[in-house]
Amino acid sequence: MSHGIITLLTDFGLEDPYAGIMKGVILGLNPGASIVDLTHQIKRGDIAHGARVLQQSCSFFPSGAIHVAVVDPGVGTGRRPMVVKSGNHFFVGPDNGLIWPIIKADPQALVIHLTNETFFQLPVSRTFHGRDIFAPVAAHLSTGGDPLQMGKPMENPVSIPDDSPVREGNTLLGRVTGIDHFGNVITNIHREDLVPFPGSGQMVIRVLKEKIETVSKTYADGEMGELIALLGSTGHLEIAVNSDRADRLLNIDESQSLPGVTVDWVEP
Amino acid sequence: MSHGIITLLTDFGLEDPYAGIMKGVILGLNPGASIVDLTHQIKRGDIAHGARVLQQSCSFFPSGAIHVAVVDPGVGTGRRPMVVKSGNHFFVGPDNGLIWPIIKADPQALVIHLTNETFFQLPVSRTFHGRDIFAPVAAHLSTGGDPLQMGKPMENPVSIPDDSPVREGNTLLGRVTGIDHFGNVITNIHREDLVPFPGSGQMVIRVLKEKIETVSKTYADGEMGELIALLGSTGHLEIAVNSDRADRLLNIDESQSLPGVTVDWVEP
Amino acid sequence: MSHGIITLLTDFGLEDPYAGIMKGVILGLNPGASIVDLTHQIKRGDIAHGARVLQQSCSFFPSGAIHVAVVDPGVGTGRRPMVVKSGNHFFVGPDNGLIWPIIKADPQALVIHLTNETFFQLPVSRTFHGRDIFAPVAAHLSTGGDPLQMGKPMENPVSIPDDSPVREGNTLLGRVTGIDHFGNVITNIHREDLVPFPGSGQMVIRVLKEKIETVSKTYADGEMGELIALLGSTGHLEIAVNSDRADRLLNIDESQSLPGVTVDWVEP
Repeated sequence: MSHGIITLLTDFGLEDPYAGIMKGVILGLNPGASIVDLTHQIKRGDIAHGARVLQQSCSFFPSGAIHVAVVDPGVGTGRRPMVVKSGNHFFVGPDNGLIWPIIKADPQALVIHLTNETFFQLPVSRTFHGRDIFAPVAAHLSTGGDPLQMGKPMENPVSIPDDSPVREGNTLLGRVTGIDHFGNVITNIHREDLVPFPGSGQMVIRVLKEKIETVSKTYADGEMGELIALLGSTGHLEIAVNSDRADRLLNIDESQSLPGVTVDWVEP
Repeated sequence: MSHGIITLLTDFGLEDPYAGIMKGVILGLNPGASIVDLTHQIKRGDIAHGARVLQQSCSFFPSGAIHVAVVDPGVGTGRRPMVVKSGNHFFVGPDNGLIWPIIKADPQALVIHLTNETFFQLPVSRTFHGRDIFAPVAAHLSTGGDPLQMGKPMENPVSIPDDSPVREGNTLLGRVTGIDHFGNVITNIHREDLVPFPGSGQMVIRVLKEKIETVSKTYADGEMGELIALLGSTGHLEIAVNSDRADRLLNIDESQSLPGVTVDWVEP
Repeated sequence: MSHGIITLLTDFGLEDPYAGIMKGVILGLNPGASIVDLTHQIKRGDIAHGARVLQQSCSFFPSGAIHVAVVDPGVGTGRRPMVVKSGNHFFVGPDNGLIWPIIKADPQALVIHLTNETFFQLPVSRTFHGRDIFAPVAAHLSTGGDPLQMGKPMENPVSIPDDSPVREGNTLLGRVTGIDHFGNVITNIHREDLVPFPGSGQMVIRVLKEKIETVSKTYADGEMGELIALLGSTGHLEIAVNSDRADRLLNIDESQSLPGVTVDWVEP
């Protein structure tokens, strides 16, 4: 088991030196740490977005990885700092829902309220716990620090609403969760959500006024300009267009509210 | 003391491979270096911006850290390349003011004009000293290279204007220095600038037509849409809004000239 | 020879965690790897752009470096995954032209079609070979894996058109290939393309309606607002303006088609 890999996920952006400063604090405590940026471009204050990206990314890291997640509009208020151990992964961040999907998926998860200032960088500011609490805690974990020494088990971590699609008969009611860098329109419908449908019949996917009747295999399927649906690399249903941006074709914009997506199962 | 941590601060952006190329040069000379991006999004050619971010970030790195700063509109002209040793930190970059605040704050700083080509990557181009001079010098420092071997002590390094607020009686005259990723409006007024005010009385902060009469503790203080002032993570006074962007509320735009900020001390 | 440095060049952007996920896969197989981002902002699906940046950057890395390049609109189709060994550098990516300039420049290059799933992360998706094939192959190479074990030598790798300027008498017909972060207008005319011109006489550079009659040495040459030409850090002819953006002065926009550039040699 390696204790040296620390990932960072924040909404800090890259213009400011905030992510770099967190790395300075980590390397001061563990000069051998391997620090990986998951992304610093979570939408500002969007806890659900951060939680989704964190959950979809963490499993590609090896046992022992420590994931620091800071989307923290409540920094400095009463919201609790926490560390979660799930399997052989650690998650460090605010108790505001960001780590909730990890906790929910693992009934065995150890959830600790960070209270032991020995593991913090003092004095702790009220504006940057990424630097003063989460980075040093992660560094201490990476050198073998014991989460049980860092605080006490915690009740009732803050939850966020479940983001799974709802099934009604032979219809799955999902929604668009975001747009990726390529303009692919990502939904909350996972491969596993499609499993219960019977083996025969045909899926019909609807978004806005569009209807897609096959699930393609690759982004290069479909004619130029034709909307296709496929299961993307995280296993979620995506709407894409060969060599173009599906978000533009569908006129979907992340700054507006995102539309629903349905999958109907039509008997042959 | 660790000699292996090298930070990079540039105005190169992330589209082009320039920052990556500097890392290649460093790793060629010291494969064990830990390289940290402070930011590559200093505003193009904005030496004062780079100097401010460098000074605010460097202290969070451990003893022995080497900070490479390249905001270098005069690359290839007569401006001197330099290394500065202050405390146990090294600063490598052009002599154009970028490292001036570090030199000014430390009368003991060792300031060396880099002239010894043994430590450069030859031939030295006239367009990319980040690659040909600053990266290899930093790599040599990280493996124990002696700055005194790299050139000779240098007189009259280029200075930039002092960026501190001015006190007039019970008024502090400061200014907005920038906007961060969250839309917080950052000023040049530091916690320490507020110390001389007497212990009783009340601060009144003014920016444009707005007046703020308390210093808040966290970004979540204040009502939705209400402007607040607080001391941010670098100790500077910021104007913020709970769950919104202060720059938009104040209609402040970094591409325009930035307004002044005053703090008045009103006797009770 | 070091086997531990792995560079990444993609068109994934930085909003999504895709690049971070590739790093997780690499570190799971080689926790000691040094991973360097060349850029993740290659224009979406622009293989020629990726190929150009890859070729211009790789030589600044030390012997043994492994370069992973993923601009891969055909992911999951029949296009072959490949590894190329040229000199002491390795190149891993899709056989779509991205690595072609490296192969073309080195008749001794070893070109292998990756077929041995032992070196992949299974199951291999049809949407993210960066994660499932290229990252794990690079990690295996970094720990001494033998490319000859990873597949079989491959015929007829996919080529892309040669991007060199054409000489007609005393005129060199080139073109603008892109705009860098500073607004410098980069051309496909390399220092070496200018060598055959006779030693006397004068160069006249033309782009759109502008004419430039000297080759400057530094970005700070020329008056404010005056277009200059110089050989940039990769050796290519660039059009620049002291303290301003040449792309704006020339009204050149990367989303439009890019203009030609000619160099004439005028006898004195």
